[in-house]
Amino acid sequence: MKKSAGAKTLAFPSPAWAIGTYDSEGKPNVMTAAWAGICCSRPPAMAVSLRKATYTYGNLVARAAFTISIPSEKHVREIDRIGIVSGRDVDKFEELGLTAVRAGHVDAPYVDEFPVVIECRLLHTIEIGLHTQFIGEVMDVKVDEEVLDEKGQASTGKVRPVLFSMSDRSYHGVGAFLGAAFSIGKEK
Amino acid sequence: MKKSAGAKTLAFPSPAWAIGTYDSEGKPNVMTAAWAGICCSRPPAMAVSLRKATYTYGNLVARAAFTISIPSEKHVREIDRIGIVSGRDVDKFEELGLTAVRAGHVDAPYVDEFPVVIECRLLHTIEIGLHTQFIGEVMDVKVDEEVLDEKGQASTGKVRPVLFSMSDRSYHGVGAFLGAAFSIGKEK
Repeated sequence: MKKSAGAKTLAFPSPAWAIGTYDSEGKPNVMTAAWAGICCSRPPAMAVSLRKATYTYGNLVARAAFTISIPSEKHVREIDRIGIVSGRDVDKFEELGLTAVRAGHVDAPYVDEFPVVIECRLLHTIEIGLHTQFIGEVMDVKVDEEVLDEKGQASTGKVRPVLFSMSDRSYHGVGAFLGAAFSIGKEK
Repeated sequence: MKKSAGAKTLAFPSPAWAIGTYDSEGKPNVMTAAWAGICCSRPPAMAVSLRKATYTYGNLVARAAFTISIPSEKHVREIDRIGIVSGRDVDKFEELGLTAVRAGHVDAPYVDEFPVVIECRLLHTIEIGLHTQFIGEVMDVKVDEEVLDEKGQASTGKVRPVLFSMSDRSYHGVGAFLGAAFSIGKEK
């Protein structure tokens, strides 16, 4: 039996990603974003929604660039911390002992310790309401060699991304392999 | 050591969601979308990207409405199948023995067997490239009572959503609870 939960943001899974930008003085900053995802295959593009109140918002608009660093489950405390404090008050890289590396293709820094990094240049800005959505064209993806599978592809089970849920205010890891995509449905 | 994978769509996690629409004759249809996510808190809004070639594209534009039905891991074959065949050729609800229910707040059907359903009315249409992004305002969320936790919130561990990865063409389930959001980072 289905019960109405009202009009709210409730969906599974949501990611927990670190958005990297430089501020006006060139200081690297990261913030956590969960209202985000892939939004186009050609050109490859990512959508990330931010509130105007964040320090990252102004940085991103000024440089028209951002990175997405995807943490592994061992970084769950760091990704939560990055979402709690503001880059206006704290140098998050320094506080957390993380390494800011200048992206190769865009004017933004990424988190070297996180296994997957996506470099984006700003393509579209959509005002929705409390959040502004930034669509960035993917200029490059960088992946730690240790998370590649035998075919040279980034492996879900090795990246071990963090899943965020606003509903039960929790982080979860990745579980069992359920099946091959574009394949198990053919058996039906 | 990070290795460039080039400019591509590679991110973890991505969802596997069923997008529900009515066609011009009022026949219910669903398709699988993974380029999707929450995109605003106020108004609550969801972003879903579709290719123009899909049957759903025209349906969604014509009725300015869609639903997102979130499958549980036991529906992994169904969500893969829904992404393989087209509603132009097959009645997917009938073929898969799924139940189409008319949404209460928008002109679109949802999958009754899936534990979480989001009803959206079209708010913005953004042409990006191969994909068009549709931003829908959430008018209601419906949740199976069995997936609620003791606080009455939808629980990640009970919903057990499906994670899709294009990189290793796989579906995975949800794993261990890693920590409480907006909390474990305070300990740092």
